[in-house]
Amino acid sequence: MTDHHARLAALRTQLATDGLDGFIVPLTDEHMSEYVGGYAQRLAWLTGFEGSAGTAVVLADRAAIFIDGRYTIQVREQVSGDDWAYVGVPAESVAGWLAAAAPAGARVGYDPWLHTRAGLADIATVLAEKGGALVAVARNPIDAVWHDRLQPSAAMMRPYDETLAGASSATKRSDIGDWLTEQGADAVVLSALDSIAWALNVRGGDVDHTPVALSYAIVNADGSTDLFVAPEKVDDALRQHLGNAVRLHARADFAPALGRFQGKKVIADPERAVAAIADAIEAGGGTVIARRDPVVLAKAIKNPVEVAGHRAASARDGAALSRFLRWIEAKAPRGGQTELSAAAKLLEFRRAEGLLLDSSFATISATGAHGAIPHYHVNEQSNAPLEPGQLFLIDSGGQYADGTTDVTRVVPVGAPSAEMRDRFTRVLKGHIAIATAVFPDGTCGAQIDGFARRPLWEAGLDFGHGTGHGIGAYLSVHEGPQRIASPNYPGGASLEPLRAGMMLSNEPGYYKPGEYGIRIENLILIEPRDIAGGDPDRRILGFETLTFVPIERDLIDPALLTDAELTWLNSYHADVERILGPLMEGEDRQWLSQKCALVG
Amino acid sequence: MTDHHARLAALRTQLATDGLDGFIVPLTDEHMSEYVGGYAQRLAWLTGFEGSAGTAVVLADRAAIFIDGRYTIQVREQVSGDDWAYVGVPAESVAGWLAAAAPAGARVGYDPWLHTRAGLADIATVLAEKGGALVAVARNPIDAVWHDRLQPSAAMMRPYDETLAGASSATKRSDIGDWLTEQGADAVVLSALDSIAWALNVRGGDVDHTPVALSYAIVNADGSTDLFVAPEKVDDALRQHLGNAVRLHARADFAPALGRFQGKKVIADPERAVAAIADAIEAGGGTVIARRDPVVLAKAIKNPVEVAGHRAASARDGAALSRFLRWIEAKAPRGGQTELSAAAKLLEFRRAEGLLLDSSFATISATGAHGAIPHYHVNEQSNAPLEPGQLFLIDSGGQYADGTTDVTRVVPVGAPSAEMRDRFTRVLKGHIAIATAVFPDGTCGAQIDGFARRPLWEAGLDFGHGTGHGIGAYLSVHEGPQRIASPNYPGGASLEPLRAGMMLSNEPGYYKPGEYGIRIENLILIEPRDIAGGDPDRRILGFETLTFVPIERDLIDPALLTDAELTWLNSYHADVERILGPLMEGEDRQWLSQKCALVG
Repeated sequence: MTDHHARLAALRTQLATDGLDGFIVPLTDEHMSEYVGGYAQRLAWLTGFEGSAGTAVVLADRAAIFIDGRYTIQVREQVSGDDWAYVGVPAESVAGWLAAAAPAGARVGYDPWLHTRAGLADIATVLAEKGGALVAVARNPIDAVWHDRLQPSAAMMRPYDETLAGASSATKRSDIGDWLTEQGADAVVLSALDSIAWALNVRGGDVDHTPVALSYAIVNADGSTDLFVAPEKVDDALRQHLGNAVRLHARADFAPALGRFQGKKVIADPERAVAAIADAIEAGGGTVIARRDPVVLAKAIKNPVEVAGHRAASARDGAALSRFLRWIEAKAPRGGQTELSAAAKLLEFRRAEGLLLDSSFATISATGAHGAIPHYHVNEQSNAPLEPGQLFLIDSGGQYADGTTDVTRVVPVGAPSAEMRDRFTRVLKGHIAIATAVFPDGTCGAQIDGFARRPLWEAGLDFGHGTGHGIGAYLSVHEGPQRIASPNYPGGASLEPLRAGMMLSNEPGYYKPGEYGIRIENLILIEPRDIAGGDPDRRILGFETLTFVPIERDLIDPALLTDAELTWLNSYHADVERILGPLMEGEDRQWLSQKCALVG
Repeated sequence: MTDHHARLAALRTQLATDGLDGFIVPLTDEHMSEYVGGYAQRLAWLTGFEGSAGTAVVLADRAAIFIDGRYTIQVREQVSGDDWAYVGVPAESVAGWLAAAAPAGARVGYDPWLHTRAGLADIATVLAEKGGALVAVARNPIDAVWHDRLQPSAAMMRPYDETLAGASSATKRSDIGDWLTEQGADAVVLSALDSIAWALNVRGGDVDHTPVALSYAIVNADGSTDLFVAPEKVDDALRQHLGNAVRLHARADFAPALGRFQGKKVIADPERAVAAIADAIEAGGGTVIARRDPVVLAKAIKNPVEVAGHRAASARDGAALSRFLRWIEAKAPRGGQTELSAAAKLLEFRRAEGLLLDSSFATISATGAHGAIPHYHVNEQSNAPLEPGQLFLIDSGGQYADGTTDVTRVVPVGAPSAEMRDRFTRVLKGHIAIATAVFPDGTCGAQIDGFARRPLWEAGLDFGHGTGHGIGAYLSVHEGPQRIASPNYPGGASLEPLRAGMMLSNEPGYYKPGEYGIRIENLILIEPRDIAGGDPDRRILGFETLTFVPIERDLIDPALLTDAELTWLNSYHADVERILGPLMEGEDRQWLSQKCALVG
C-alpha cells in the first residue's frame, strides 16, 4: 500500500501543476470495454483495487473509491482506508459525493476518452451548482506520473475467415451503409472493439480472453470504411483480406479524422462511444446523431454458420469438461487437490483437444465458501484445498475459432448434505424453467427472469445476479444487447426484445454465504417454434440448449421434480450421451453413461 | 358527423383569430385524470371519439387523431375520415407527424393546463427545428367556440370519516410535512384528485364512478394546507372536518397562489402536475423540484382499517354478483336477455345490498364476439342478445364507503366448446400462478407478469393487456404506482417495487377475435410471508386473494390442472362458501354450495 500512497501523492502534485482541484478515474478504456488491457488499468495502478467495476475520485484533501456490493470486502483488503473513503453504489454516487466533498468553485478533471457524455451529466450539474466545473483534460494526469506504464499490446490484427463468420465483411459493411442511408446519416463511428471485429471479420489479441484488436472504424454510407489501427499490427495477409474499400490509418489519426465531418451527420452510440468522439465531431462542424451502434443487434443474432460452429466448439468443450469432472470426482475425495490445481487440470483437458485458442475468461474455480462469491477469482493467496463435505463450483469457457463457450457445473466432494441437494434441485428447476420457456416474439429477458427464480422464491431464497447474458461467436463472453435479468438491472439490457438467433447463458444459482455456492449454466439459442392451434398471427419463440455436460445426479432430489422436469432432465442427459459419447473412450465413456442414466 | 365538421371549422377560425397555425387536443383534464368530467371532454366534442385514450392535432389544412391499437376500429366508426387522418401510436407520434405535416415556421398552440412538460418536449423540439414554436395559450381556443359546454359538476366535497380512512388527515399532512423537510422543500403541489381526497380525508362527486372533487392543494412543510375548491362545494360540516390548518381558497385563486413562492422550493410531480403549475411557480421566482407526489405511495399501501373495510365491501359485493350469476345461468339459455338487461340486473342486485354508492366504472357486459374486445362498452346500438354457444363476460365493480371493488367472471350460455374450456383453464392457471406467487421484497410487477402468461404462451396464445392494476380505497378503480405488466408497458409502473399492503387486480385473459373473450379477475393484497428455512435477511412477500365469487366450474378442464392448482381452486371455493354462505339464503345458498363443490 505504500506504493499506492506515493502514487496518490504524485497524482495530486500533477493535478496542481495542471490547475485541477480533482480528477475522476474510471475503470474502462477508450472503447468502454468491460475487460481492459494492462496499459489502461489506471484505477488498479492508483488504488490497488482489482475488481471488475469501480471508480475513484481524487480531490486535494480527500479521495474516495466507489464500488458496488460485490466488492465491499475486497476493496477493504486491497485499498488503504488511510487514503481512500469507501463509498457504496448505487446507494451513493460520484455526483452526490462531490456535492458534499468538492470545495466551492472546484475544477474537477476527467479524461474524455474514458467516459460517455451520459455518464458525466450529473457530475457536471453538481459542480456547476457549486460554481465549479467539470473539465476535459487534454492528457490524462495519471499517464504523466505512471512511469512504468505498460505499452498497449503488440498482438497482430488477424483475418477471420468467412467460412467461420458466415458472411463477408463486404456484405456486413454494405448492410451498415444501407442502414446509414435509411437514417439519413453519412457515417457511423464504431468504437466498441467487438463491433469492429465483427464488421470487418478480423480478430486480435489485445485484451485478455477476448480476441479483439485495439482500433476504431468509421463506416460510410457507401459501405467503405476507415480503419484506425497501429500499423505494426497489420501485415499483407490482413491488408489483402480487408480489400480496397477499407482504408487503413494509424490509430493516432482517429481523433483528427473525426474533425473532418463539416456539414455531415455522424452516428455515435451514446452508450458505447466516449465523450471525446462526439466532442471531436462537433468541434469539426459535424452533427452527432445518437443511435445504437448498428453492429450490436446484427452481431447478437447469429447466422447458421456461427450456430453450427458453436455446436462443434461446444461438443469438444463439453467432452473436455466431462473428462475433468470424472477426474475431479475420483481425485478430490483423496485430498491434495486445490482450486488452482483443479483449474490447471481443466485447462490441460481443454488444451488436449488441440483447438483451444484461449480461455474465454479467468476460470472461477471455487470450493466451499468461495463458491458463495459469484465473481470469486482464485490466486495464490486465496487458493483453498478441496475438502470432503464441500461443493466445488467450476465456471469456465474456451475460445475456439468456431465459437466461444461458457459453462458452470457443481460437484460434491464426498457426500452432499440434504440442504445442498434441496438447493441444487431448486436451481435446476429454475434452469429447466428457462430451458423450456416459450414466449411471443417481442418478449424481453426481464419477462422470463422470474421463471428461473420462482422455485427459490418459494423457499425464501434468491440469487443476486442476472439469469443470462449474451455471448459472442469467437468474441466476448459477455455480449449485448439482450439479457435475462430483473428489469431494474442497470443498462436496461433486460428490456431488449429477445429475437430468434440470439444466444444467451442460462445460469441461475444459489449462494449460502460462508458455506457453498451453486450455479448451473448452459448456453441456449433462441429459435422459432411452431405451436399447433396457437394464434395464427403470433410468432412464438423458444430455447434450444447448446451446452452438453452431465448435471451432477448426486445433487438432485428427484422427489422435488415434476414429471415434466424429470422428462427434460432425462432427455437432456440422453442428448449429452449422444453428442459427447462419440468423443469419449474407455473409462471416460463408461463414466458418461453412468452420469447420463435415467433419474427418477 | 356534420356537427363535428362544423366544430372543426369553428376551431380553425378561432385559431386564425388567435394567431395560431395549429392546436393540440389531449384527452385529459387539469389533473391529468384518467377519467374526466363532461366539461373537460374537448376531444370527444371536437372529433366524436369516445375512447379512453387519444389526442388530436389540428392544422389549417389538415388534422389527425392519434389512437392506440385498442381503438383502430372504433375511431373509424366515430370520427370522419374526411376531416381526420387516423394515426396509430406508439408506431407514430404527434411529434413525428408534425415533423412531416406542419409548415415551416408553424406556431402550434397547447393548453398548459392539459399537458405535462415531459409530454411536450419532443413536440417543441420538432417545431423548433422547423423554425416554428410550440405556444402555450392563455385560453383554450376550443372553449371559445364550444358554446354549450357543460359546467363543471356542482357536487359537494364531503368529509370521509377517519373510522373508514384509518388515519386522520392531520397525521397524513404531518407526514407529508416531515417528508418535505427531508427533501429540503417548502411545499408540495397536489393536483391529482385522488391524492387530495386521500390526504384531506374528503370525497366528492365530480368525476363519473370516482368519488373525487375538483380541487388543488398545496401542503406546506408545517403540514398546514391551502385547499383550492369552488366555495359552493363547501359546507360547514366540511369546514369543521378540515379544521384551521387547512385554509380554504376559491379554485380560481390556485394559479395566482403558485406565483407567490419567490425564493422557495416547491415540489411538483412531473407525471401528475401539468406544465402550467411548474410554469407559474417559476414565473413567480420559486424553484420547482421534480419529485413524485408523496401521496402516491402512501395511498397505495393500505392500512389495516382500509383492508378491513375492503373485506366487508368485497363480501357484500361478491354476494350480489353471485346472485346475479345464478340468475343469468337460469335466464340466459331461455333467451330474451341482452348485454344491457344483464348489466341492469347486476346493478339491481348490487343496489339491493343497500350500501352501493356508485359503480366503480362502466360495467363491461359483453357476450360472444364482444367479449373479445377487452374495453367493450355496451350501448343501445351495440347491445347484443345472449345466445346459446356464447361465453358471457361481465367485468364490474362497486363503490362503497368502505371500499372499491373490481371483479370479472365469465359464464357459458349453454354448453361451452372444448376449445373454450381449454382456454378458460389456461387463463385460470395463469390466475393461480399469480395468486400463489411469493417473491422477495423489492420485486416489481414486471418480474411476475410472465407467471400469468406462461400457460397461454405454451399454447401459442397471449393476452394484450396488463395482468394487474392497483385500486383505491373508496377511490379510483385504477390507482398507481404499482402494476403487474410487461416492463415495456407505458409509464414504467410495472417497475415499481411491490410492497406489503398494496392492493392489485389479478386478471389474465384470452381473447379470440370475432368469437369470445375470457378474463378471470380477483383483487389481491400483498402481505409478508414467513418461510421456514429461507435466507434470514430476505423478506418474502405473497398475495392474499380478497375477492370471493365462484369461478365457473363448467369452464374448467381439471385434466389440465396440476395437483397444486386443483388444491388452490378447491381451497378458494371453500373460502367463497365460508365467506358468502352467511350472506345468502334458500336457493341462492344451495346454488353457492353446488358451485363451490370439489373439482377434480
